Amino acid sequence: MASDGLKPAGPFSDAEREAIYRAIHERRDVRGQFLPDTIDEDVLQRLLQAAHAAPSVGLSQPWNFILVRSPGLRQDIRAAFEVANDEARAMFSGEKRELYSQLKLAGITEAPVNLCVTCDRTRGGRVVLGRTHNRDTDLYSTVCAVQNLWLAARAEGIGVGWVSIFRDADLRRILGIPDHVVPVAYLCLGHVRELYDIPELEARGWGDRNELANLIFEERWGVR
Amino acid sequence: MASDGLKPAGPFSDAEREAIYRAIHERRDVRGQFLPDTIDEDVLQRLLQAAHAAPSVGLSQPWNFILVRSPGLRQDIRAAFEVANDEARAMFSGEKRELYSQLKLAGITEAPVNLCVTCDRTRGGRVVLGRTHNRDTDLYSTVCAVQNLWLAARAEGIGVGWVSIFRDADLRRILGIPDHVVPVAYLCLGHVRELYDIPELEARGWGDRNELANLIFEERWGVR
Repeated sequence: MASDGLKPAGPFSDAEREAIYRAIHERRDVRGQFLPDTIDEDVLQRLLQAAHAAPSVGLSQPWNFILVRSPGLRQDIRAAFEVANDEARAMFSGEKRELYSQLKLAGITEAPVNLCVTCDRTRGGRVVLGRTHNRDTDLYSTVCAVQNLWLAARAEGIGVGWVSIFRDADLRRILGIPDHVVPVAYLCLGHVRELYDIPELEARGWGDRNELANLIFEERWGVR
Repeated sequence: MASDGLKPAGPFSDAEREAIYRAIHERRDVRGQFLPDTIDEDVLQRLLQAAHAAPSVGLSQPWNFILVRSPGLRQDIRAAFEVANDEARAMFSGEKRELYSQLKLAGITEAPVNLCVTCDRTRGGRVVLGRTHNRDTDLYSTVCAVQNLWLAARAEGIGVGWVSIFRDADLRRILGIPDHVVPVAYLCLGHVRELYDIPELEARGWGDRNELANLIFEERWGVR
């Protein structure tokens, strides 16, 4: 049974399973609930280990983790966010623009730790197993790492907010990211005392959640 | 404290936290360990609910789930995989090609349920909050859904294998996927009795895991 490095597997206990679903369903994208408390280095290492345990195409592990903690650098990042956010706001009109203006979309300077998760598109060499027919699978692997970290963070009482409103060039310049590397996710991390019960954009009337049943097809696209 | 839809939050119990890390670290990409047993509809629904609970840019929820169960359709998909896999094998040379030939890379017909997770690039309209500066964030949201499902599956004793070796046009044709929709992940799902203790590609000598410490930078790219 345990030949070839195989180990017995099976379902978790009910309590363990419930914990997984709790993390999945209580995880939130945090903008305004960060506490200034520092994050323990042990906790941060566990979160990064969780990210590093993600699946990666051809075992390429294309990710890097840039920890951004200095207040000066976070100020620079926030300024870059503000520039992009002004551009973004202008893309909406009427009531949507007004509502957009009221949303707090980033906790860059409030969260004590920022983390840029990147994807090195050259990692693993010229030909990567599993990446031969879809070149974007390395980006996908990197996102798996982000989601692992996000769920682990929920269990640790650490909130995570993913900020994607940046001009790509700004993030590259401020963090010194080379051309062959893609900044996939810019995350704000910090302790949280409270979290939204439902996604904040739903709570604030920006949008509704879809019915899962409407998103499932049987055998082929569009067939129910 | 509970104003505005905010609820008290904080770290999970030690046992709950350990369960999260167990799922993260024991999750494997399954190729050859599928059992033929059917998956309970209740379990399948919980997995899809876990996927649907993923974060999505601007609450756009760009995903759909195509459940592929008919043996005929899975045969067609496997044939498409074999064509692409022959092309992929030819991209390697020498010892790598020999090792590649020995790897089992897909359990499409052995796994009783296949699942194509797609991203509708028009979901949420012309301008999506958070997608204004990086158009790929909808693809990233879809991958978060995949990783949620993958971890939930581990807890349920369901193995998951992500198959990415397809010509894009083949998958679209067989599953009837329209042009504005991207097939992000093709997953094989089934019960498993055993799992690799370490990633299979590591166990089989295809590659090694990197040291996490070498992947972490402080403040800027390249700085340790």
